[in-house]
Amino acid sequence: MASLEHTLIEARPMTGGDGPLSYAKNSPFQKGVVERGKLMIIEGIKNKLDFKIFDTSNKFLIADFGCSAGPNTFFGVENIIEAVGIKYRAQNKDSPPLEFQVFFNDLTDNDFNTLFRTLPSYQKYFAAGVPGSFHVRLFPKSSLHIGFSSCALLWLSKIPREVLDCKSPAWNKGSIIQCNEHSEEVAKAFLGQYASDVDTFLTARAQEIVGEGLMVIQSPGRPDGVLMSQTSTGITFNLFGSCLADLSKMGVIAKEKVDSFNLPLYFATVKELEKIIKKNGYFSIEKLEVWDHPMFRAMKLDPQARCVQFRTVSEGLVKMHFGDNTVEEIFNYYVKKLEENYSAYDKASNHQIEMFILLKLKIN
Amino acid sequence: MASLEHTLIEARPMTGGDGPLSYAKNSPFQKGVVERGKLMIIEGIKNKLDFKIFDTSNKFLIADFGCSAGPNTFFGVENIIEAVGIKYRAQNKDSPPLEFQVFFNDLTDNDFNTLFRTLPSYQKYFAAGVPGSFHVRLFPKSSLHIGFSSCALLWLSKIPREVLDCKSPAWNKGSIIQCNEHSEEVAKAFLGQYASDVDTFLTARAQEIVGEGLMVIQSPGRPDGVLMSQTSTGITFNLFGSCLADLSKMGVIAKEKVDSFNLPLYFATVKELEKIIKKNGYFSIEKLEVWDHPMFRAMKLDPQARCVQFRTVSEGLVKMHFGDNTVEEIFNYYVKKLEENYSAYDKASNHQIEMFILLKLKIN
Repeated sequence: MASLEHTLIEARPMTGGDGPLSYAKNSPFQKGVVERGKLMIIEGIKNKLDFKIFDTSNKFLIADFGCSAGPNTFFGVENIIEAVGIKYRAQNKDSPPLEFQVFFNDLTDNDFNTLFRTLPSYQKYFAAGVPGSFHVRLFPKSSLHIGFSSCALLWLSKIPREVLDCKSPAWNKGSIIQCNEHSEEVAKAFLGQYASDVDTFLTARAQEIVGEGLMVIQSPGRPDGVLMSQTSTGITFNLFGSCLADLSKMGVIAKEKVDSFNLPLYFATVKELEKIIKKNGYFSIEKLEVWDHPMFRAMKLDPQARCVQFRTVSEGLVKMHFGDNTVEEIFNYYVKKLEENYSAYDKASNHQIEMFILLKLKIN
Repeated sequence: MASLEHTLIEARPMTGGDGPLSYAKNSPFQKGVVERGKLMIIEGIKNKLDFKIFDTSNKFLIADFGCSAGPNTFFGVENIIEAVGIKYRAQNKDSPPLEFQVFFNDLTDNDFNTLFRTLPSYQKYFAAGVPGSFHVRLFPKSSLHIGFSSCALLWLSKIPREVLDCKSPAWNKGSIIQCNEHSEEVAKAFLGQYASDVDTFLTARAQEIVGEGLMVIQSPGRPDGVLMSQTSTGITFNLFGSCLADLSKMGVIAKEKVDSFNLPLYFATVKELEKIIKKNGYFSIEKLEVWDHPMFRAMKLDPQARCVQFRTVSEGLVKMHFGDNTVEEIFNYYVKKLEENYSAYDKASNHQIEMFILLKLKIN
C-alpha cells in the first residue's frame, strides 16, 4: 500500500482517533518513509540551510503540510529539528539555543484533538495546529524557515471534472477508480490536476517561507515507463475497483455510484514532478533522490492487513460516496477479493519509488 | 452565572461540540463581555499601541489565551484586528495591509475540532490552535504583538492543597464548594493560588510578547467589600453545594466526595489583581476599567436556564469527580434546588463586576 497521508478538500481525512482501524495505528509504511528520509534531511540541512535567514530573536519556525493525526508527523519534524540543531550549535557555540515552533497543518476535518493529545511529552518545540487546505495560503508572508510535506502531495484537491463527465472522452466509468493506462485522456486529466495542485501548493509556500528557506517534499511516485497497474499500489486499487464492480452486480451498490467513484490520487514520475517545480519557478531544486521503500521488498502483508491499510486511508472517501451503511459490507467483500487474487502482487512489488526533494526558495 | 471560560489543568474543559448543552451554544453572558469590551479595546489600542513594535514583514500576531471552543473567541480577536487595522491604515496609508495570524489557545482537552470547524468563513486572519496550559510558555520568545484573555484567568490551575487536606485549618469540607466568607483560611488559600497562577501567566507572556506589546485581560471579579455569597454567581455556587449535600444525605453520592469537591475559581477584587500585576513587574497597567455586566440587570433567567449555564462550564469537573453515571441525577436535582430557592437571587444581582485591564510589556 502506498502512503496516502493527505486527502482531498471535499473528502474526509484519515480515520481519526487511535482505535484499531485508525490511521495513527496503521501507518508503518509512512514511518519507514520518515526514517529513510531522516538521513537525507540531515545531510540536506547540513549542506543547504543558511542561518542568515534568521531574524534576531532565535525563533525557528517549521510547518508540516498534510500532517494527518498519526505519530509520523512528530518523527518528521523532529528529524528536521535535530538536523537544524546540530548545524546551529556547530556554528553558534556562544548563542542561546534556538526556540522551535512547529505548525501541524491538515484539512479542517482532520482529527486535531487526537493530534494534540498525542504530542510527545518530551516536546522540544512549541506546537500549533493549522486547519485548512494547503492549496491556499495558511500563514502570513515570510513566516516559516522550513516547510515539510511527507506523503501528502499525491492527494489531489479534487477529481478532475472531465473524469466525472459522461460526455467527455476522459470519463472514467466502471470499476476503474484511478488514473490508469486504459485511457490516455483519463491519465492526462489526472496529471493536469496534479500539476495544477502542486503549482498552487508551491506558489502559496513561496509567500510563506522566508527567502532562501527550505521546502522538503517526500512523496511516493512511479518510475518512468512503469504503469500504475504494475505497482502493488495499483493492484490494490484495481482490486478495490473490481470489488465495487462485483458489489454493483450483486445489487449492493448502484452502478452509477461505481462509475462516479475515483481515487483522488496521482503517483507522478520524477520527471513529471521536476517539470512542474521548474515551471512554477519559485524554488530551486537542491536535491532530488529516488529510492525503493524497504517495506516493498521485505513486507509480507496478508490480505486482511492490506485491507486495513487501504481502509485507513480510504474509508472517509468510501463512506462519503457510498453512505455509512454499506462501508462494512464493501470492506468485508474486499478482503475476500484480495484473498482470491493475492498472487497478482507477486510480480509487482518492486516498482514503486519514494521521492525526496529538497527545494530552496529563490530570493526575489 | 459568571463567565467561566477556562478550566483547570487536571479537569475537563467546557462541554465541547455544538449540541444543546455545549459551551458554544450557551455563552451569551460571555458574548456580552466581549461586546462591551470592544469599545474599550478600540480605544485602548488607539491610544496605547505603537507600531514600532512591528518587524518589517507586516505580520501582526495575536493570541487568545483560554479561548474555549465557542464563538466568542472569534468576536474577541476580531475586535482587536479591527482596532489595529483602523489605527494602522490611518498611519500607514501607502503600506501594504497587515497580515494577521491568530493563535487560539486552550488546554489540550479543549474541543479544537469544533473550534476549527466553526471558524468564520469570512476569516480575515490566518488561524492556528495552540494546545496547553497558559501557565507555562506556549510560544517562542518575542512572538506576539497582542495577547488577549477573556473570562479565563479566574480559573485556577488547581485547588489549593490545604483546602483538600482534612488536617489543615483551611480544609473546605461539606457543601462549601468555593472560596467563601465562612473561613478566612480557605479564602487565603484560594487567593494565594490565584496570585501564583496570575503571576506564572504574566511571566510566561512577558517572554512571548514583543517589547511594548499589549496584553488585554477581561475577567469577572467582585467589588471590594462584597462577599461572593452576595453575588448571583456565589448564590449559584452555594445552591449547587447544597444540592450536593442533599444528594449525599440521600445516599446518591458519598460524603467524602462532597467534602473534596471544590470549584477551582477565584473572583478577585480589582485591588487584589492590581497588586499581583505590580508585584510581577513585567507589565505596566495602561488602563483599568470596572463595569457592571448589563445582563446582570436585564436578564431574567429561569432556573432551567441557570442550570444549563452552570452545567456548560462545570459538567467536566462534575463528571470527573462524581463519575459519568451520576451527572444527570445531580443536574436534575439541581434544577429543583434552584426552583425552590430562586428568591435568593433577588438581592444579589448587582454585585458582580467585569474588569478590563490593558497592560503593556515593559522594555528590559
